[in-house]
Amino acid sequence: MPHIQLDLSGTEPFIRPEEWKAIAPQVEAAAQLLEQRCGLGADFLGWLDLPVRLDSAELQRIEAAAQRIRSQSEVLVVIGIGGSYLGAQAALEFCRPTLRGKPSGGALEVFFAGTHLSGLYLKQLIRAIGGRDFSVNIISKSGTTLEPALAFRFFRRLLEERYGLAGARERIYATTDRSRGALRALAERQGYEAFVIPDDVGGRFSVLTAVGLLPLAAAGIPLDALLGGAAKAYQRYRDGNVLQNDTLRYAAARNLLYRKGKAIEVLVSYEPRLFYLAEWWKQLYGESEGKDGKGLFPASAQFTTDLHSLGQYLQDGRRHLFETVLDIETPEDGALTVPATEDDLDGLNYLAGKTLHYINRQALQGTMEAHIEGQVPNLRLILPEASPQVLGQLFYFFEKACAVSGYLLGVNPFDQPGVEAYKKNMLRLLKQP
Amino acid sequence: MPHIQLDLSGTEPFIRPEEWKAIAPQVEAAAQLLEQRCGLGADFLGWLDLPVRLDSAELQRIEAAAQRIRSQSEVLVVIGIGGSYLGAQAALEFCRPTLRGKPSGGALEVFFAGTHLSGLYLKQLIRAIGGRDFSVNIISKSGTTLEPALAFRFFRRLLEERYGLAGARERIYATTDRSRGALRALAERQGYEAFVIPDDVGGRFSVLTAVGLLPLAAAGIPLDALLGGAAKAYQRYRDGNVLQNDTLRYAAARNLLYRKGKAIEVLVSYEPRLFYLAEWWKQLYGESEGKDGKGLFPASAQFTTDLHSLGQYLQDGRRHLFETVLDIETPEDGALTVPATEDDLDGLNYLAGKTLHYINRQALQGTMEAHIEGQVPNLRLILPEASPQVLGQLFYFFEKACAVSGYLLGVNPFDQPGVEAYKKNMLRLLKQP
Repeated sequence: MPHIQLDLSGTEPFIRPEEWKAIAPQVEAAAQLLEQRCGLGADFLGWLDLPVRLDSAELQRIEAAAQRIRSQSEVLVVIGIGGSYLGAQAALEFCRPTLRGKPSGGALEVFFAGTHLSGLYLKQLIRAIGGRDFSVNIISKSGTTLEPALAFRFFRRLLEERYGLAGARERIYATTDRSRGALRALAERQGYEAFVIPDDVGGRFSVLTAVGLLPLAAAGIPLDALLGGAAKAYQRYRDGNVLQNDTLRYAAARNLLYRKGKAIEVLVSYEPRLFYLAEWWKQLYGESEGKDGKGLFPASAQFTTDLHSLGQYLQDGRRHLFETVLDIETPEDGALTVPATEDDLDGLNYLAGKTLHYINRQALQGTMEAHIEGQVPNLRLILPEASPQVLGQLFYFFEKACAVSGYLLGVNPFDQPGVEAYKKNMLRLLKQP
Repeated sequence: MPHIQLDLSGTEPFIRPEEWKAIAPQVEAAAQLLEQRCGLGADFLGWLDLPVRLDSAELQRIEAAAQRIRSQSEVLVVIGIGGSYLGAQAALEFCRPTLRGKPSGGALEVFFAGTHLSGLYLKQLIRAIGGRDFSVNIISKSGTTLEPALAFRFFRRLLEERYGLAGARERIYATTDRSRGALRALAERQGYEAFVIPDDVGGRFSVLTAVGLLPLAAAGIPLDALLGGAAKAYQRYRDGNVLQNDTLRYAAARNLLYRKGKAIEVLVSYEPRLFYLAEWWKQLYGESEGKDGKGLFPASAQFTTDLHSLGQYLQDGRRHLFETVLDIETPEDGALTVPATEDDLDGLNYLAGKTLHYINRQALQGTMEAHIEGQVPNLRLILPEASPQVLGQLFYFFEKACAVSGYLLGVNPFDQPGVEAYKKNMLRLLKQP
């Protein structure tokens, strides 16, 4: 099984070996807090050994529901926000990249809803479904989070109008709290098939629970590969040695850079299929570390696109950032090769016969060198291939590194006290009774 | 004609009136450099009075070509990168928002290519066009920029295979330098209809030249409304008084915040149609100001989506950022209203009959209050409606404010010396002869 690797050579000009020695005991202490489950937020460590203690009955139920969704519908509407959709969206685009969301060969089309309050989007989505059969997976711990709850009202009504009350019940799948909350109550009253968001797994760590697994299975992503990759990472990253464990090396490097004034981490990718993985990563790190006035600001960039927009800033602007680059090694099957032209007016015939993937990776290499020269530390995470198995590793890698990184920073990586402030104001303005 | 307005009340807790007095003479000096065309980069001020000195013959040619594209094709592939596509992409999504790029009612479908080096994307795009008739607008000053030049090789071959040499020539529209460069030479040799990128307008300021106007006209966006809005903004923002001219107020406010330690400006929107406008804005400000070790890092966020991912950081993380919020006042026509449910298990019946737009704007208001309380200065740009006319104003507003802001920061807002570094390395690695 090929595995992901962290290359820190692009940080060497910026971090002396002694700095590693100085921080190592702190990283080990942070890792210990996690392993011994005695740090802040230790009630929310369910994700830590999730890959090796999966409930196989629940998994079978997920696969069976996925099968049923595929047989009853052409479209699945996944309703959720934040951690209730970003993991599935990221995995779907990574494992089954599409142009504008349209899968080939008549596969199930997946739309996400309840991710914001745009009425226009909702109208267009309803129009896009048209007369096609559809099912709904509503994902919400409480069932009262405004955006998904509102979206669910629209789609529930649509289903009930189209299929009747009994027909709608068979097309609604609820992923929610085991026993509490409005959605659990509704699911029980209506008889929706329901899946569990474990109490000890926070939203941003929930991709490998039913939250992520049901939509992915419905879309035909092989869960065994995804979960097998995560289980492999679980084993691989148990090592407590800072110099050998990539999750600890990543946590240490970003903390070392933060302490010497870096304020922003830019997650860089070179393929569109990584767009939502970056969004998932931004929630994971932003929400886990951005508190008590601390934390690296998590940003993302898509290269080479953004080299023609943010490139100037990255090369030559304020020196308060570093980059973490996702590098997919293996090219696509059946890759396109550059055609020759008779006139060669653009002077690119020397690239004729090369694949775009090859050219893309030279761009990656050249950019890393240029940015390092421009005083931007570069971390590189090498993905041997763009497979579900590698993605499973990647999810677990980032989750574990994030927990250690949060402890190293001195925060509780598992709470999010700041997200209530705007909700409170909004509900006051909406005159919630 | 309704006009956009800048609301700075959300910066008042962070900027004392005396600070405004102190910076006013500097802002006025920066504005003078621009108006008198004697600042750094003054050879690139063609955009400044573009809205009132448009070449009407060129404009007619653009409209005629657009008409021809619509009559000959169902699909237009626009090939360009950075400033050669972001303006058109931003305007297209703003004026004609779609779900996943698919316009309704059989309107011309527009795809962008040459924006990166993903072979998978290119393959999928070719498959998505399928047997439909298509035309190509290749946009490149030099004709040798790697990404668009490579993409053009693929689509030129495809056109020549499908329509023959003569047929392909009638479907290729080149937007390029007036007289120099590989694309100009190719267009002349092949007889492509060609449009001009003016010498004195840099890529990131080029949306209101043929660069942006041809794809937009082809997609059916009314250019007179877009350009009329820009012309209105041109008149409106000539006033030299810092307290009355919103471009100067915006430049001043962001510079005041930068000087007191803010490192990141987050452009916030509440509608998906604004996604690419933020990308366009990031290039404009990042490339204009990110140099000589200076500049605010331009980031963007989509609310309420990102309130469930970056929201924790924004509320409570490191206090080195401020937000500029785009607020669309007028709701969509035929807006959806929240349905009531019999059980009201989610407790949202109190919102039954309200539009999502109304709820979205309460979220905006509540979030601004929460973030200001969390020590994040908030600027708000009010867009009276999501029309081409308002977008024309917005483009001009941001361009002019950016130029003044760059002078205020003490940089040349019109060059981009840093973007060559990675290209040099890449071409060396690719063994360019």
